[in-house]
Amino acid sequence: MTLDLHGTGPRTPGIATRGETVPTVPPAETAADAVDVTALLERGRTLTTPVLRAAVDRLAAPMDTVAAYHFGWIDAEGNPADGDGGKAVRPALAVLSAQAAGAAPEVGVPGAVAVELVHNFSLLHDDLMDGDEQRRHRDTVWKVHGPAQAILVGDALFALGNEILLELGTVEAGRATRRLTSATRALIDGQAQDISYEHRDRVTVEECLEMEGNKTGALLACASSIGAVLGGADDFTADALEKYGYHLGLAFQAVDDLLGIWGDPEATGKQTWSDLRQRKKSLPVVAALAAGGPASERLGQLLAEDAKASDFANFSEEEFAARAALIEEAGGREWTAQEARRQHTIAVEALDAVQMPGHVRARFVALADFVVVRKR
Amino acid sequence: MTLDLHGTGPRTPGIATRGETVPTVPPAETAADAVDVTALLERGRTLTTPVLRAAVDRLAAPMDTVAAYHFGWIDAEGNPADGDGGKAVRPALAVLSAQAAGAAPEVGVPGAVAVELVHNFSLLHDDLMDGDEQRRHRDTVWKVHGPAQAILVGDALFALGNEILLELGTVEAGRATRRLTSATRALIDGQAQDISYEHRDRVTVEECLEMEGNKTGALLACASSIGAVLGGADDFTADALEKYGYHLGLAFQAVDDLLGIWGDPEATGKQTWSDLRQRKKSLPVVAALAAGGPASERLGQLLAEDAKASDFANFSEEEFAARAALIEEAGGREWTAQEARRQHTIAVEALDAVQMPGHVRARFVALADFVVVRKR
Repeated sequence: MTLDLHGTGPRTPGIATRGETVPTVPPAETAADAVDVTALLERGRTLTTPVLRAAVDRLAAPMDTVAAYHFGWIDAEGNPADGDGGKAVRPALAVLSAQAAGAAPEVGVPGAVAVELVHNFSLLHDDLMDGDEQRRHRDTVWKVHGPAQAILVGDALFALGNEILLELGTVEAGRATRRLTSATRALIDGQAQDISYEHRDRVTVEECLEMEGNKTGALLACASSIGAVLGGADDFTADALEKYGYHLGLAFQAVDDLLGIWGDPEATGKQTWSDLRQRKKSLPVVAALAAGGPASERLGQLLAEDAKASDFANFSEEEFAARAALIEEAGGREWTAQEARRQHTIAVEALDAVQMPGHVRARFVALADFVVVRKR
Repeated sequence: MTLDLHGTGPRTPGIATRGETVPTVPPAETAADAVDVTALLERGRTLTTPVLRAAVDRLAAPMDTVAAYHFGWIDAEGNPADGDGGKAVRPALAVLSAQAAGAAPEVGVPGAVAVELVHNFSLLHDDLMDGDEQRRHRDTVWKVHGPAQAILVGDALFALGNEILLELGTVEAGRATRRLTSATRALIDGQAQDISYEHRDRVTVEECLEMEGNKTGALLACASSIGAVLGGADDFTADALEKYGYHLGLAFQAVDDLLGIWGDPEATGKQTWSDLRQRKKSLPVVAALAAGGPASERLGQLLAEDAKASDFANFSEEEFAARAALIEEAGGREWTAQEARRQHTIAVEALDAVQMPGHVRARFVALADFVVVRKR
């Protein structure tokens, strides 16, 4: 495993780049290298999925069926399926964060379930608002079950997320719900920014990062702290874990933006040049436009023409490849790869503020490493 | 003022029918007759609106503007407006319920605001799902600002409702949020039922009442108890006030269903025969179909034909009037009027379980009376 976002950029010191000699070798129990990330993600999934399914089963028909389709548990005809439920980074973080507060992993499970419910509420609504027809290699809910069900089931998952936490009836659950609500508000703000940016010619790098912090950072921040809050952590600890999760979210999103242009369609389940086809003002594009110089200016002209082009939908692979090459030439690809590494570093450093067992810290670091090296 | 839902039906004993001689004259401070309902509604509105507006101001642009349009504070061009904000029964109930727990009316205000936010979240989404183009004499949000904004701002109001309560940071606020979440889930269940009933030929009276209990009863139940919960009431008291509100909601909805067919368009702001034009399976229709007899059978045949009629949108006033006459002849109008009175009685009797000052009880009763005699 290597940190192969782009390859040639300067390495941020402090990232334990897999497979390389790192400056200081940490003791075995704190080495992120020694962590089996696949097993860690699997543990989060195994602990969370049965509780999540039981929660979704509470929904009145036909919302339970529509939600089960969305989660990949059944197909469009209602037959059992073993769909791609996503990477499950959030459940793994929520469960791990309970351990950061000295509690058992299970203590984080209601938090993991609540975060997953809110995350999927936002997917259902965003896919409808954005007109996205595919997610996780399958038709989106609004395509299969219609817009009304996408709205309604999204609403139901949102409410269910709060319900799962509040029915614990503890002071900690109240605090967790408050943090989840703040994250949800940020999520909605981010989607509002995303929509408004679509109608604008230019978006600054700062605006783009703010939007991505809202859309991705806030809920990963919540996932990274909610188990700790349920485990009785104080606000200082929860805030530090939120900081880790927020910057992890920004690293995650920077990688997503790279995959959205240069990702392998086989791995991502998206079309080639996916974000370019959607005219997304993602980090590589915004950074390239802000860079100045001939390639940046040529890119700006091309994208301005594209915005008015009536045959944009019929553009060839070569036309998108040319735009991707300009983004790279102007430095947008390298800037975004560096930004992912920069945010990864801030995330990992935020863990220093929290007293936790070395093996728990190593797992947080390993999850952060995973997020920046993933291919999908 | 008379209980003039229909006129000739048998009176439910125990309703203090305004303007008639009632069997026992209660002492002045407990007489619902003596309550100025207009002033009571105005108090709820006056206490709640500034806090509601401050909450909505927290939304990021353009969601704040879209929400302000929905609430009638600005027009479609963004100019200040003094729109019809609705009857404001919920805020009046929430504020009053704080007094039922011996607290100041102000204690109920965050509850009133939260309930209003959740109520309006559901209006925004329901109008879009149902394709309704008009509300409160104005174009609905999705007509003016597009479907994406209707979804997004609905989501934001939902989240804001929880935020307003949870940021109080008290145990009572946690309990209030839990009750609000249950009500919200019921609201969503009710909308799911409403949508699924549209595609069915027949709906039983019981199914219709269950749906209306979810869509209207649950949130009025929450409004009627949330101030008391914030004021420290125990669960027994809160449950009794919820029972009052739930049955008040069913009475409210029965009256709405009557107004949806026989209401004065000038007063309701809706078209003539509004619910018939929308093929709504409301209580009068469902009760008439269940009644049996020649008018009921003729109505069933007509509605079955209507469901397939390609020119339904062009039906004349006379054609709708003929259907309304059949509903009345089959007893659907009278049954619904009686149901409103029956639910009113259950609501008022639920108050007996709660120890509260006589003047507070009189106000609850007066609001219940108002709900069943209103014209809009």
